[in-house]
Amino acid sequence: MEGRGVSGLEEFRRFRERMNERILEADNLELKRFFALDGRVYDEGALPASTKELMGLTASMVLRCDDCVAYHLIRCKEEGASDEQLFEAFSVALVVGGSIVIPHLRRAVAFLDELNAEESPS
Amino acid sequence: MEGRGVSGLEEFRRFRERMNERILEADNLELKRFFALDGRVYDEGALPASTKELMGLTASMVLRCDDCVAYHLIRCKEEGASDEQLFEAFSVALVVGGSIVIPHLRRAVAFLDELNAEESPS
Amino acid sequence: MEGRGVSGLEEFRRFRERMNERILEADNLELKRFFALDGRVYDEGALPASTKELMGLTASMVLRCDDCVAYHLIRCKEEGASDEQLFEAFSVALVVGGSIVIPHLRRAVAFLDELNAEESPS
Amino acid sequence: MEGRGVSGLEEFRRFRERMNERILEADNLELKRFFALDGRVYDEGALPASTKELMGLTASMVLRCDDCVAYHLIRCKEEGASDEQLFEAFSVALVVGGSIVIPHLRRAVAFLDELNAEESPS
Amino acid sequence: MEGRGVSGLEEFRRFRERMNERILEADNLELKRFFALDGRVYDEGALPASTKELMGLTASMVLRCDDCVAYHLIRCKEEGASDEQLFEAFSVALVVGGSIVIPHLRRAVAFLDELNAEESPS
Amino acid sequence: MEGRGVSGLEEFRRFRERMNERILEADNLELKRFFALDGRVYDEGALPASTKELMGLTASMVLRCDDCVAYHLIRCKEEGASDEQLFEAFSVALVVGGSIVIPHLRRAVAFLDELNAEESPS
Repeated sequence: MEGRGVSGLEEFRRFRERMNERILEADNLELKRFFALDGRVYDEGALPASTKELMGLTASMVLRCDDCVAYHLIRCKEEGASDEQLFEAFSVALVVGGSIVIPHLRRAVAFLDELNAEESPS
Repeated sequence: MEGRGVSGLEEFRRFRERMNERILEADNLELKRFFALDGRVYDEGALPASTKELMGLTASMVLRCDDCVAYHLIRCKEEGASDEQLFEAFSVALVVGGSIVIPHLRRAVAFLDELNAEESPS
Repeated sequence: MEGRGVSGLEEFRRFRERMNERILEADNLELKRFFALDGRVYDEGALPASTKELMGLTASMVLRCDDCVAYHLIRCKEEGASDEQLFEAFSVALVVGGSIVIPHLRRAVAFLDELNAEESPS
Repeated sequence: MEGRGVSGLEEFRRFRERMNERILEADNLELKRFFALDGRVYDEGALPASTKELMGLTASMVLRCDDCVAYHLIRCKEEGASDEQLFEAFSVALVVGGSIVIPHLRRAVAFLDELNAEESPS
Repeated sequence: MEGRGVSGLEEFRRFRERMNERILEADNLELKRFFALDGRVYDEGALPASTKELMGLTASMVLRCDDCVAYHLIRCKEEGASDEQLFEAFSVALVVGGSIVIPHLRRAVAFLDELNAEESPS
Repeated sequence: MEGRGVSGLEEFRRFRERMNERILEADNLELKRFFALDGRVYDEGALPASTKELMGLTASMVLRCDDCVAYHLIRCKEEGASDEQLFEAFSVALVVGGSIVIPHLRRAVAFLDELNAEESPS
């Protein structure tokens, strides 16, 4: 329900990585193919990767998927998105998805603050 | 996944309040306007505030947003809703939204029990 | 995509009634029980039927179910809801559910206008 | 809003087929891969194709996608599902997804009746 | 269920415009404010309007709102998006939202073809 | 956000059971009837219980309800489903529901691993 804190950030990454490996080890070709496709679809193309990641962020937010939001926030920052740009993405998601997005917005901003703190430790 | 307990109730309020402040401090006019609108829409009007809060509760429950449910439960009780009335709202939400609402119903009832315990400490 | 017009209103009622009969004739006890429960849950209780119908309307709107919205609009009007009250319910649904509710709001208002026209033919 | 009638059934098939071709002609590898994956995932495996189609039908119904329901009804019947079995799938979907599934259930049953009529013309 | 054809495109615009006017005439301040906010949130800012419209398109598609998709397709083209870019947005939406997006993708592509035909009449 | 661990599995069961009792004790007939119906709909019928549980699992997964997924995983295993079959159900759910299902898939697989560990303690 609350922000994960910096240790939570690390835990999120570890659980995510461990379970992705576990799933890809299972002998199921369709799951493997879906995961591959999920990676490729955000690659640079006619649209820049930075735009695609912002689209993924907005889609994740209106669908209210905290882990997806967290992942795309990491990727958006890697692609150079500023906080101001991310807040504009949040505002689009909020207007499209309504007030039920707010709890996810709170967690997204807390997560973003953690990412920023990790980047520039005082 | 579980009831928050009385300390969890306090934590919910603190995180909510802290992040709302954080978000409103960000320099984004649309977010501010949405938050203002989200407050005003439940104000007394042609419909009493108590009815609007019950509508907000039911909408939150069928959309399966635990934090929204918790918030509207607090507000419904402030507007004088009885437990019997809240359970009728739950039953409408359950029939409209189906069995996937049940885990949220469990958490809503646990949260309501905490609110009631807080009100009348033994 | 558009308003149904008065003939559309009649068509909606006929298709709804015909298919409900068809479904209840099928030899499936769980479907019958669900339909019975769906009727009873809006009955007068600790909450008045008028409030429950407004809750059903709001829930249907945030879940974006045009036929459910149409049905609850009919019922809300039977329970005495004014247009001003219905528009307040719409505004709660819009804020909770976001701009994706707007196309359903347009159809709901067109349907309400048809209901009102049917009531007071010039 | 209503049943499609036998001509509607034909129209559904033609539009579906025409647009699928149009989409696969577009030079977008990810769309092509998704469509391929969408076909393969229902193939006979550790679970029989008939079970997978029933799972696809139920998932489509709780997600309230009329066209997906129509497609899986066609496939379920090809895999030998009886009307009684399909109605049991409907009842699971109705309990899981709630009363907002009902309008889709009405259209699904109307579509099923059309499929059955097409099969055994009087 | 099918593409709207050029006349359908015109009908979509007319119904949309007529009902928006009807709603804004109603004496409900919250609805008016929401509509105003819904307009402003896509304005040029730290992110270009073209990016925001692509985000709106993707969000509309994963939320499976045909009218919202149609509106954002019109706006994306006004902001200069190419078909290739729009298909990349479709592919992101398809991977994020899954196969239940496909019927909406079919209608989106049919609508895009109509928009393109309108632009360059043979 | 993470796997529950074996103690978490126990906690899930206890909270679930305690709150179900609490809800059924409340004097609300509609809630009781819904819970009864929710139990009966998965009973052996024209479709075997094992198939219905797989349908419930897939529906829960595309609707992204972790607790529902956990419950149906327990029931699927009681009905004899193999891991290979469960992974095929996962792959159908992933293709139908898209990448937003992935975080729930990770938690489902972690939960399944816990169930398997509980069964065959080393």
